[in-house]
Amino acid sequence: MSIQTVSIVGVGLIGGSFGLALKKRGFTGRIIGVSSPATIKKALARGAIDESAALKDAAAQSDLVFLSTPVPQIIEDLPRIAAVAKDGALVTDAGSAKAAIVDTASQVFHRKAVFIGGHPMAGKEGRGVEIADADLFVNSVWALTPADPALLELPAAVEFTQLIAKIGARQKVMGPSEHDRVVAWTSHLPQLLSTALARSVGDQVDETSLEVAGGGLRDMTRLAESPYEIWEGIIAANGGEIRRALDVFIDELDSVRSALGTPEMEDAFRQAGEAARKIRKGRQ
Amino acid sequence: MSIQTVSIVGVGLIGGSFGLALKKRGFTGRIIGVSSPATIKKALARGAIDESAALKDAAAQSDLVFLSTPVPQIIEDLPRIAAVAKDGALVTDAGSAKAAIVDTASQVFHRKAVFIGGHPMAGKEGRGVEIADADLFVNSVWALTPADPALLELPAAVEFTQLIAKIGARQKVMGPSEHDRVVAWTSHLPQLLSTALARSVGDQVDETSLEVAGGGLRDMTRLAESPYEIWEGIIAANGGEIRRALDVFIDELDSVRSALGTPEMEDAFRQAGEAARKIRKGRQ
Repeated sequence: MSIQTVSIVGVGLIGGSFGLALKKRGFTGRIIGVSSPATIKKALARGAIDESAALKDAAAQSDLVFLSTPVPQIIEDLPRIAAVAKDGALVTDAGSAKAAIVDTASQVFHRKAVFIGGHPMAGKEGRGVEIADADLFVNSVWALTPADPALLELPAAVEFTQLIAKIGARQKVMGPSEHDRVVAWTSHLPQLLSTALARSVGDQVDETSLEVAGGGLRDMTRLAESPYEIWEGIIAANGGEIRRALDVFIDELDSVRSALGTPEMEDAFRQAGEAARKIRKGRQ
Repeated sequence: MSIQTVSIVGVGLIGGSFGLALKKRGFTGRIIGVSSPATIKKALARGAIDESAALKDAAAQSDLVFLSTPVPQIIEDLPRIAAVAKDGALVTDAGSAKAAIVDTASQVFHRKAVFIGGHPMAGKEGRGVEIADADLFVNSVWALTPADPALLELPAAVEFTQLIAKIGARQKVMGPSEHDRVVAWTSHLPQLLSTALARSVGDQVDETSLEVAGGGLRDMTRLAESPYEIWEGIIAANGGEIRRALDVFIDELDSVRSALGTPEMEDAFRQAGEAARKIRKGRQ
């Protein structure tokens, strides 16, 4: 394997888990962390990285650069990395909105190193390298969003996809815009609905009456506990698709309101039940 | 205790669990089931009831009549029960919308027997006496919605509230309309959002792209698997409050759409997070 040196930029839950997973699955090269001094200290203690360096130093010596900071930071770092990256190196990321990142990369990478966007669909509650987990990616899906699918045949990309298979993830290739449209529906809209529902229920129902709330409301408001710091960058990077999904969904709620008490409601429940079963097919 | 004979009308999950719970907690009187022959056979085999009878025969000899059929059936049965119920008997129910039921009862009960609406906030996935559970009500909340709170001081009502405490439930007294407004927000709107979300995602995202969906979407579409047969009656009985909640919620989504990318979004997330924590306070 010619990937000998890996940089992880942003050694939080995802970055730290990537480092731990590589080591657990037998990667014997060096792993360089790029993060704040406090995070580096914790990441070294966890064994998620071997050493630390500043962004440009790390990128200049790495065969694989893995960007796992929030989306706006990724976009800001891409030109700096492109300027120093080694010939044949692969730069990839874990940002949850892809078109803005891939577009920026296309403007700054010029066939020396190659950029392929990625989005590992893995996570758990909480944040930080403290809870990083070598098995976080086991049985997960790892979306890859190359600007052109042919990029995946470059040697560094082939090696990278072997690495993600080794740490337990299944790759799913998608166009960057299609990825963003899909996650607007499957992740970003659900987040905003949960946020809006929790806020409305908090406004409309006094605290003692919340005693009558059941497990359904708890399921529907779990995402509402996600911190805004994570979502600010996602909303900024995927605002167009999120707005389109909200438009369509508000129309859908309008038609639910009109269908109340009519036979159309039965169709809605049947179609929703089928979709819900597809959504959880093969999951717990 | 003067409650010696109990009728359970509709021996499904809730009715069957009520029978099993009474027996487990030392109730030594008779329990009469009113259901279809197939259900009666299963309920007898589970030991949830001791015998069966037709509705009027059962009601005429019972000190406590517990109605746990769907809401429209409860409304239909109330006059028949009022016509035969014993002096001093308590008639109560487990319907998930209360104003329509309590209003009907107020018109047909005339101080011979007394009706007090109820709504045990307990359940589990699936249906039928097959999965009835003597501990279903342990640590649950049991909403009681008397037309007038003074009714709760009648001897039969006092005994009934002792029984529900014995089977593990905590009573919560609410006005019928306030109950319906609260459950529109905490139960009925969340159901319709889950249904609408599952249906929209099913329309917008092809099945292979659903691979990238995570646990959040699964949480948000779990309710969408609920069968319409359960919801048809609830929507019919609580349509007014459900429509009002939908109106307010659609406005809330409109303002979320306008707030995308503005500092107001941070407030929305903060308020939603606080509400979500209140919703799950003291629960898992």
